[in-house]
Amino acid sequence: MNMEIATVNALPYEDFVNIFGNVVEKCPIITAAVWSRRPFVSLGAFEAAISEFIDALPESGKEGILRCHPDLAGRDLQSGTLTQESREEQTGAGMDALDSSEASRMARLNDEYKERFGFPFVICARMNDKATILRQLSERLGNERPVERARGIEEVKKICRLRLQGLVLIDALNKL
Amino acid sequence: MNMEIATVNALPYEDFVNIFGNVVEKCPIITAAVWSRRPFVSLGAFEAAISEFIDALPESGKEGILRCHPDLAGRDLQSGTLTQESREEQTGAGMDALDSSEASRMARLNDEYKERFGFPFVICARMNDKATILRQLSERLGNERPVERARGIEEVKKICRLRLQGLVLIDALNKL
Repeated sequence: MNMEIATVNALPYEDFVNIFGNVVEKCPIITAAVWSRRPFVSLGAFEAAISEFIDALPESGKEGILRCHPDLAGRDLQSGTLTQESREEQTGAGMDALDSSEASRMARLNDEYKERFGFPFVICARMNDKATILRQLSERLGNERPVERARGIEEVKKICRLRLQGLVLIDALNKL
Repeated sequence: MNMEIATVNALPYEDFVNIFGNVVEKCPIITAAVWSRRPFVSLGAFEAAISEFIDALPESGKEGILRCHPDLAGRDLQSGTLTQESREEQTGAGMDALDSSEASRMARLNDEYKERFGFPFVICARMNDKATILRQLSERLGNERPVERARGIEEVKKICRLRLQGLVLIDALNKL
């Protein structure tokens, strides 16, 4: 059963944040902020409100969002400390099944990326597999910092859209 | 041993966010954002950067910060799901030791407050005890919404300052 937008609009902020607080990884403030913008005419309007909030942040705030994201196939995956959403996305893309040469290549490129940009490589894992992730990581390392910051935020929005759709489709109210 | 500001400035963003990510409750994005503003000349400058980031947010973003805060003596305290910082602060102010009439009064006022403002009552528990918390909650219920939003954010900044000082004084590097 789908959650109707009217149901979303009627949620008290606590339920709203409990359900949707991680559509942008570890940034419940964003969800909590857009609660002020209800009622939404559609799921798309809800998503657009999140997107507008992100776009209005200073560049440091956008970098802050990226820095709240875990590495792909990184320490949090190995130690089991990923958020549930990230774990599902990373395992879905095969990040838990890299062979040793892929794993060491990924680790090296992640480190280079973080060293160069001061934030982690963010990509919508559900729209990629390990081959395209490794290729994009390698390619994006050549970008300039402002380009890559904007690129990372684009990916954050893709991740957000899929998380949001997943939550509304499975009727997260059942989780309350 | 105190953590020197030079040590803070030298932290990679991952360590920086791990250590300081909850100085504003459940808003690691803020800490992660101000990492872009290093080097800080002092702890005060670090704190000022956080404060400026908060002040530059739209009103919805400030409300978002407030909505990331738990109720005082609320569900999270009872169920053990407070962040470590909040738990220490709430128990320090006696929120875990309310008698039944205090507890029911607190619950009722919290609900009235949330109903009226759309965000929870936030107060720096370490600077108060249960008597002053109950009195302020009751008094602040009479404020207008914009006044109370600003008041809550003032309290967020007090909480942030004390958390920050605590972390730097105990040399959180030992926690790495």
